[in-house]
Amino acid sequence: MTESITGQAGQPPTEAVVELLGMLGYGELLAFERMAADARLAPDLHRRAVLCEMAAAEIGSYRRLAARLTELGADPEQAMQPYVSPLQAYHDRTEPRDWLEALTKAYVGDSVADDFTREVAAFLGVRDRELVREVLHDSRYAEFAAAEIRSEIDADPKLANRLSIWARRLVGEGLSQAQWVAAARPALATLILTGAADREGVPALLKRLTQAHGARMTAVGLNN
Amino acid sequence: MTESITGQAGQPPTEAVVELLGMLGYGELLAFERMAADARLAPDLHRRAVLCEMAAAEIGSYRRLAARLTELGADPEQAMQPYVSPLQAYHDRTEPRDWLEALTKAYVGDSVADDFTREVAAFLGVRDRELVREVLHDSRYAEFAAAEIRSEIDADPKLANRLSIWARRLVGEGLSQAQWVAAARPALATLILTGAADREGVPALLKRLTQAHGARMTAVGLNN
Repeated sequence: MTESITGQAGQPPTEAVVELLGMLGYGELLAFERMAADARLAPDLHRRAVLCEMAAAEIGSYRRLAARLTELGADPEQAMQPYVSPLQAYHDRTEPRDWLEALTKAYVGDSVADDFTREVAAFLGVRDRELVREVLHDSRYAEFAAAEIRSEIDADPKLANRLSIWARRLVGEGLSQAQWVAAARPALATLILTGAADREGVPALLKRLTQAHGARMTAVGLNN
Repeated sequence: MTESITGQAGQPPTEAVVELLGMLGYGELLAFERMAADARLAPDLHRRAVLCEMAAAEIGSYRRLAARLTELGADPEQAMQPYVSPLQAYHDRTEPRDWLEALTKAYVGDSVADDFTREVAAFLGVRDRELVREVLHDSRYAEFAAAEIRSEIDADPKLANRLSIWARRLVGEGLSQAQWVAAARPALATLILTGAADREGVPALLKRLTQAHGARMTAVGLNN
């Protein structure tokens, strides 16, 4: 019940909320396109169909975020625009070469992004907080990806090394783009810094994110 | 009411229905993947989001076809498998180089495929006939594509020639793969030939398809 401290009075500025929802909305569009592209790497039709179905689910989330942006008086396209270039840069630099790299990217990247989003949701007013939590990636994809990675590593333990290096590269590229976004979007950066400071502070937030990431890596047989 | 002649007694063999639904199911998966890939060619975020949303709708259709295949005692993956190679060949040979080629491909190709599917639906039992008619491509995509093509040709009439050549190539490649499918899937080919013969015959069916295609070309400023 500690969340009730972000009451009506403590609502974050609309500008920051628009920046956050714009980032998440564009993230959904990209996640959709990426899963759809990954589907083509799938080794069989069953896995390919599963991925297509999961990709389609992202569009429902996108639609809800776009509707909320419009309601807040923002143009969804304009709100998403600032994130096109940094997110594109991340994806250009981390183009998976095969099915397992694609799954690892989804498992590692989407999960860190979701953990971060869940933390930031706590800094929002009730309504946006609920919306943001509801549009987090469908955990079925992470579970599906984790099961595939684990079974492939079991079958061929040498894979663990290559995929661990790949995962570290994903995190490094992700952090580099996140810093770019933080510098370019001061309202959003302030929302996060203030929100974290009101609680246990930024270092505690980063520590939680890092620990969860480490636990996920270990769970599928990868190392940090 | 002439459709009632395909009563319970005149039900086509399950084998042929499975071959048809398998083809349509795989077509939906491919249409989804293709629209999702086309979205990346969109000139702005608004058009990109529209395309992603329309792509996602195809997955609902895929799911219904897969469910019906299972109900008929078929494995959806196995039913779709024979179409992977010919449909892939078609798409590999008609990879759009830009946004307008992508839209023309969707407008021309999906519409011919839908007209054909609508004709074949008449040869099925009531239940499958309704399912097949319901999973035809969302006409919003064809309308969206037609409006875009028309306005681009209005702005630059020289485009009409290039896109007309492109459309003819699409039809030629499509027919070539359709012949391959007809030869490899005798139950499906028999369903179509018998169904057409029971009505006005295959030449009349082909004439209707050709006329509708010609009218669509003219409607957006392209020529046959």
